[in-house]
Amino acid sequence: MSLTFKILSGSNPGGRRARLDLPHQVVETPVFMPVGTAGSVKAVAQDVLESLGAQIILGNTYHLYLRPGHEAIRRMRGLHRFISWPRAMLTDSGGFQVFSLSQLRKVTDDGVQFRSHLDGSSHTFTPEHSIDVQIALGADIAMAFDECTEYPADRNRAEESLRLTMAWARRSLEHFKKHRESVVWRDEFEGRTQSLFGIVQGGMYGDLRRQCAERLVEMDFDGYAIGGLSVGEPRELTLEMIAEVLPLLPKDKPRYVMGVGYPDEIDLYARMGVDMMDCVLPTRAARHALLFTSEGRLNIKNKQFAEDQSPPDPACQCPVCRRYSRAYLRHLMQAGEPLAATLNSTHNLAYYLGIMQRVRASFEPPAQRDQS
Amino acid sequence: MSLTFKILSGSNPGGRRARLDLPHQVVETPVFMPVGTAGSVKAVAQDVLESLGAQIILGNTYHLYLRPGHEAIRRMRGLHRFISWPRAMLTDSGGFQVFSLSQLRKVTDDGVQFRSHLDGSSHTFTPEHSIDVQIALGADIAMAFDECTEYPADRNRAEESLRLTMAWARRSLEHFKKHRESVVWRDEFEGRTQSLFGIVQGGMYGDLRRQCAERLVEMDFDGYAIGGLSVGEPRELTLEMIAEVLPLLPKDKPRYVMGVGYPDEIDLYARMGVDMMDCVLPTRAARHALLFTSEGRLNIKNKQFAEDQSPPDPACQCPVCRRYSRAYLRHLMQAGEPLAATLNSTHNLAYYLGIMQRVRASFEPPAQRDQS
Repeated sequence: MSLTFKILSGSNPGGRRARLDLPHQVVETPVFMPVGTAGSVKAVAQDVLESLGAQIILGNTYHLYLRPGHEAIRRMRGLHRFISWPRAMLTDSGGFQVFSLSQLRKVTDDGVQFRSHLDGSSHTFTPEHSIDVQIALGADIAMAFDECTEYPADRNRAEESLRLTMAWARRSLEHFKKHRESVVWRDEFEGRTQSLFGIVQGGMYGDLRRQCAERLVEMDFDGYAIGGLSVGEPRELTLEMIAEVLPLLPKDKPRYVMGVGYPDEIDLYARMGVDMMDCVLPTRAARHALLFTSEGRLNIKNKQFAEDQSPPDPACQCPVCRRYSRAYLRHLMQAGEPLAATLNSTHNLAYYLGIMQRVRASFEPPAQRDQS
Repeated sequence: MSLTFKILSGSNPGGRRARLDLPHQVVETPVFMPVGTAGSVKAVAQDVLESLGAQIILGNTYHLYLRPGHEAIRRMRGLHRFISWPRAMLTDSGGFQVFSLSQLRKVTDDGVQFRSHLDGSSHTFTPEHSIDVQIALGADIAMAFDECTEYPADRNRAEESLRLTMAWARRSLEHFKKHRESVVWRDEFEGRTQSLFGIVQGGMYGDLRRQCAERLVEMDFDGYAIGGLSVGEPRELTLEMIAEVLPLLPKDKPRYVMGVGYPDEIDLYARMGVDMMDCVLPTRAARHALLFTSEGRLNIKNKQFAEDQSPPDPACQCPVCRRYSRAYLRHLMQAGEPLAATLNSTHNLAYYLGIMQRVRASFEPPAQRDQS
């Protein structure tokens, strides 16, 4: 068994509350997943993530493959142990980073040759290799190796990209089925294994998106992601593509929109029936002084906060808002103190996780809500 | 009332355990004080410092005067509130930083003209101004404005520097006595005020050190510091200067050696009768991958730790050693993750605070130790 997904309650037209049972954690969905690119959610310690209620975090296959290396992580009994994170994890396939970070890419039907952004060394990722790396890392959920279609892309380019993604999805799944039993922690979890999700691509072409979704569903993955969004397109297009794809995905499996988004987006998509989302935005924005609050976005470096002793977000109960003032957070940014990134990121993650908590609560049947 | 200092037990020749009662915190001494230069112990959040048992931390008058400004901090009701640190604080006088960081210094009998290292703006610190700034900051303990004698300094230079330091000490004390009632939190603490410590200088000349100590003791400060050490001199000289001065300081007042040192040094000086010490070393070394452990110093970037799954210090019970491995800390440094500074600093501070805890325990009378 890899995962079970039990829908607890829902709303119209498609939002639902569910329980995603993964080997390392039972995850309440809809869920926002903080991103721990290189094995750390930047500037936030694992115990802080736990106290904020993070149930599942991401790791990045491309980064961890290059450093410290997947074989080293396998020898240390997997990514969970390596980073001391006992709850659930998901690794992306490395596809997106190969395309966005590496140099001198050469794409063939077989896979992608690229040079490391760290030292220029030469590497090849094929679907099989991506899966091997992800099994070595041992996250609860692995992703099929895909080609992320850039934006804008003309129809020919989008079709060609989609052809690769679908061929690679099949190879990813076949290889995964053959080797899933070899994950290093299997015996600790009564023989359970990782799960594999397929990724719907197709650029901004609704018919390509639908075609991709239908093919992937035929292949029968454990869950389905919508990728290639938030790559520079207007938000209406993001929404349109999600709306095109969601109805085609099986209702009884988790649906994951990759790399989104702003607070109002994750709220909206969850209410449309998206179960999982991840984004670097809360932590990246935090490092650049941008706080998300119930009063809107604050650039905490702004001079108006120099002596503002109110909490960053007066409606927030996170450890940062309970203890520190806007004036102090501004000062930390101005002074270049490393604590600025930690406190800003902690608040932003709390804010994102809080949105999902409220969405989940809103999906509960009224009777249940009265009891709680 | 400013402070009370009650000796609880002692050892021979001069180490002692005492209770230093300050407005914001009763501090058990000997104590190590983490340094929060610009209002933050670099990369370590206040709740983590509390959980490590930090009783008192330092703030830096020069840095906080330049940014965000002492008047802003006064308006926000003092440094404790501004940084959300309810326990004790000490501010140094700014003397050391004016000499080590600022540009184009001009020293006269009146004080020091200098240019900010941040923006080149021109400022003057006199003893009176340093005290005004420190009263605005409102730390539990303020320090007399001194000139830190550089190393090496010839006898003429050391004598001239000492003359200034002693004249400035007297002016600091007089100004402090006139204005101590104006500290912003006085009414919250039953009329208690800050305390002022004098600083013994004199370069590496034992007779100048003794002369300075005797004059300062005549002035009757609330406590006494030994400054101008750890400025590049060999460790034997540091020890010699401390040994020269300690016997001349009143037994019933706290004695503080500024800016030291390595773990074995703070242990040694505490056993010689030093009650308070501060140093950036545990946090600065941490940011450069140097960990202090019961097994000696580790450069955690070292390749030998790449797959070392043991805790940073197997004998340490700090939150970092209980959760993370050497391999993970090495990876965080290699990957340039901000969490590296946080975890390394947390461990090093725990190690320093643990040394002082053991020294204090060793000073307890045997009967009391049996009960505990």
